[in-house]
Amino acid sequence: MSLFVQKYGGTSVGTVERIESVAEKVIKFREQGHDMVVVVSAMSGETNRLIGLANQIQENPDSREMDVLVSTGEQVTIALLCMALKKRGYDARSYTGTQVKILTDSAHTKARIQDIDVSNMRADLDAGRVVVVAGFQGVDEHGNITTLGRGGSDTTGVALAAALKADECQIYTDVDGVYTTDPRVCEGARRLDKITFEEMLEMASQGSKVLQIRAVEFAGKYNVPLRVLHSFQDGPGTLITLDEDFSDMEQPVVSGIAFNRDEAKVTVAGVPDTPGVAARILAPIGAANIEIDVIVQNASADGTTDITFTVHRNDLEKAKTVLGKVCADVNAREVIADDKIAKVSIVGVGMRSHAGVASKMFDALAEDNINIQMITTSEIKIAVIIDERYLELAVRSLHKAFGLEAIEN
Amino acid sequence: MSLFVQKYGGTSVGTVERIESVAEKVIKFREQGHDMVVVVSAMSGETNRLIGLANQIQENPDSREMDVLVSTGEQVTIALLCMALKKRGYDARSYTGTQVKILTDSAHTKARIQDIDVSNMRADLDAGRVVVVAGFQGVDEHGNITTLGRGGSDTTGVALAAALKADECQIYTDVDGVYTTDPRVCEGARRLDKITFEEMLEMASQGSKVLQIRAVEFAGKYNVPLRVLHSFQDGPGTLITLDEDFSDMEQPVVSGIAFNRDEAKVTVAGVPDTPGVAARILAPIGAANIEIDVIVQNASADGTTDITFTVHRNDLEKAKTVLGKVCADVNAREVIADDKIAKVSIVGVGMRSHAGVASKMFDALAEDNINIQMITTSEIKIAVIIDERYLELAVRSLHKAFGLEAIEN
Repeated sequence: MSLFVQKYGGTSVGTVERIESVAEKVIKFREQGHDMVVVVSAMSGETNRLIGLANQIQENPDSREMDVLVSTGEQVTIALLCMALKKRGYDARSYTGTQVKILTDSAHTKARIQDIDVSNMRADLDAGRVVVVAGFQGVDEHGNITTLGRGGSDTTGVALAAALKADECQIYTDVDGVYTTDPRVCEGARRLDKITFEEMLEMASQGSKVLQIRAVEFAGKYNVPLRVLHSFQDGPGTLITLDEDFSDMEQPVVSGIAFNRDEAKVTVAGVPDTPGVAARILAPIGAANIEIDVIVQNASADGTTDITFTVHRNDLEKAKTVLGKVCADVNAREVIADDKIAKVSIVGVGMRSHAGVASKMFDALAEDNINIQMITTSEIKIAVIIDERYLELAVRSLHKAFGLEAIEN
Repeated sequence: MSLFVQKYGGTSVGTVERIESVAEKVIKFREQGHDMVVVVSAMSGETNRLIGLANQIQENPDSREMDVLVSTGEQVTIALLCMALKKRGYDARSYTGTQVKILTDSAHTKARIQDIDVSNMRADLDAGRVVVVAGFQGVDEHGNITTLGRGGSDTTGVALAAALKADECQIYTDVDGVYTTDPRVCEGARRLDKITFEEMLEMASQGSKVLQIRAVEFAGKYNVPLRVLHSFQDGPGTLITLDEDFSDMEQPVVSGIAFNRDEAKVTVAGVPDTPGVAARILAPIGAANIEIDVIVQNASADGTTDITFTVHRNDLEKAKTVLGKVCADVNAREVIADDKIAKVSIVGVGMRSHAGVASKMFDALAEDNINIQMITTSEIKIAVIIDERYLELAVRSLHKAFGLEAIEN
């Protein structure tokens, strides 16, 4: 007998019929003798409906009240799921974030979990009840309702699994697992049976949207085995665990190819090459709350240098405004912006122990005449910035070059 | 400077535009220097939408989960109203029943208030904030969300006013006050400036739908001055207070005419007239949770008696089933049911000190050839059961007979 925490997203509970299907699924596990804690999101569309009401009043409404408003979405779902379970003769009890209680800081709309009181849930599990918890929400020390930010229901699931020392946290989604890359871009994309937290984290931060980064971080930190599954199809999904769980010597060097089109590139060209100049350029960007991803600095012969970095496309205009001023301050020649770029990354813990991964990647791209504009690496990832037009081609080439079609599941 | 508790019902907060109007109204009082606590219902239609979702799962869903579900309705409104107040530069804070906290018993869907913690609200008022509270809901000692039953928002308003020792509890509705009778039935109906708790209670329990009986009881018990006002029209409304506030010697004998069509009449005929027989007939009715209103027993010459009583029309079939069995047990002749009846009542504290009120009532009805089927009286009320067809005629005759058109407001 195991303890499972299952999380069902908005699409999985989007109608009363689907909530009833979720109840059936939960009961299947219950019948196998497992203890069940179920975390649910708001019914799809509901959060947007509530935000729409608020926006009729004001574009940026008070964040405390925003949390009071949107937290009702999950509260509706927990009640309906418990009704569906009880109708089928299974005892169940719903919990809001306040009722659990999931203690967070007071950063409304983006609160962080500080502590989870498991006593009520534990008592219910001991009494044979299914515990149903509203995802995405908590309560601060003053009793104010907080939310963890959109997608925070994954984090709720993992945090509950960690606090309850669950055997597995199962995230039910609209895909049947984590893929070597996006099947819509690359036909040969294949579902992975297993992937490490580290790899999943790189995949997520490089653009794979299957799981929230924060939930993966949390799962890694507390070593909560995480499984991604399809809500309406049977299948083993993808298990995300610690490195050491991989005893398979045949583990491939690269596990997956991630990509995104969300970034834009900015170059401050002809900067006098003096110590501290990079900091003088980047500090105002940070001060303007613009996040920087890849940074490259090219030293040059004529005593000037070019500093290039990428930001989120939504921040490009703001970045250009900030840099216009900085450019004059540091006597740079000009600011060049390009939002027609894409980032492609290869990710794999196997890269640690395998040489020649980078050159294989660059060879594959060169063979297709794809120019690499920027490169950044970590221990288990190599990311390149390329012209957006070549994105799909690059993903397919790399997928093939690293033999990902051939992974046996 | 006074402390006012204002309550706005579902129609008054039915759209975002109306919520903004409520904000403007609250601000008008705030600008006059008053401390404001505002109780709101769910946006009109929302509670029914939520119940509809639940009923897609089950006709009678679990009552604990029903409370979790429907309490979200008011939670949405408190957040939106606070946003509207803040947008206009007025500090405000919303409270769910749990957050206040409004402690109730654990009778889900019909909980009773046991205690109200005023400390948080008091601190907010002292800090100059408008306090916005979700009506209709509370929390039990175990942290479960409870609701007070439909219409319970009035009760929340009065209970908060009592706990905070507010100067007045103002109930905003879709009518501009309490009328001598329903203006849709009697053209001459007039708004009353004042009415006593006792009279209002009789009016409400006799069919006037302006206020919930429970809220009036509560206000009377704790002597909370209650005012009924129109949400969207200016005007003094009707003040409901204790008897002694009426120094006006011209106080009319009768304050209002109430009526309802909700009842049905049942007669158990030809019952052997022995001691305890009424109890043997009525006990099973009580045991079946059927409420009885008017009861009349006629002794007869032949050693049998007829026992007649009224029940809610919705309970008539159940009552007939119960009585079918009882009828045999007590050797009664037959059970006769009639759901084509109506009840008309005259209400007024002045009746205490005036003789001849009953005969004046009966004369007025006789003049219009309206037959009285049953009569019941209290110190400040006389109610008669008549054929439903004569209801409007009876109301108009009595309204005129007691000079209610002539009341000067």
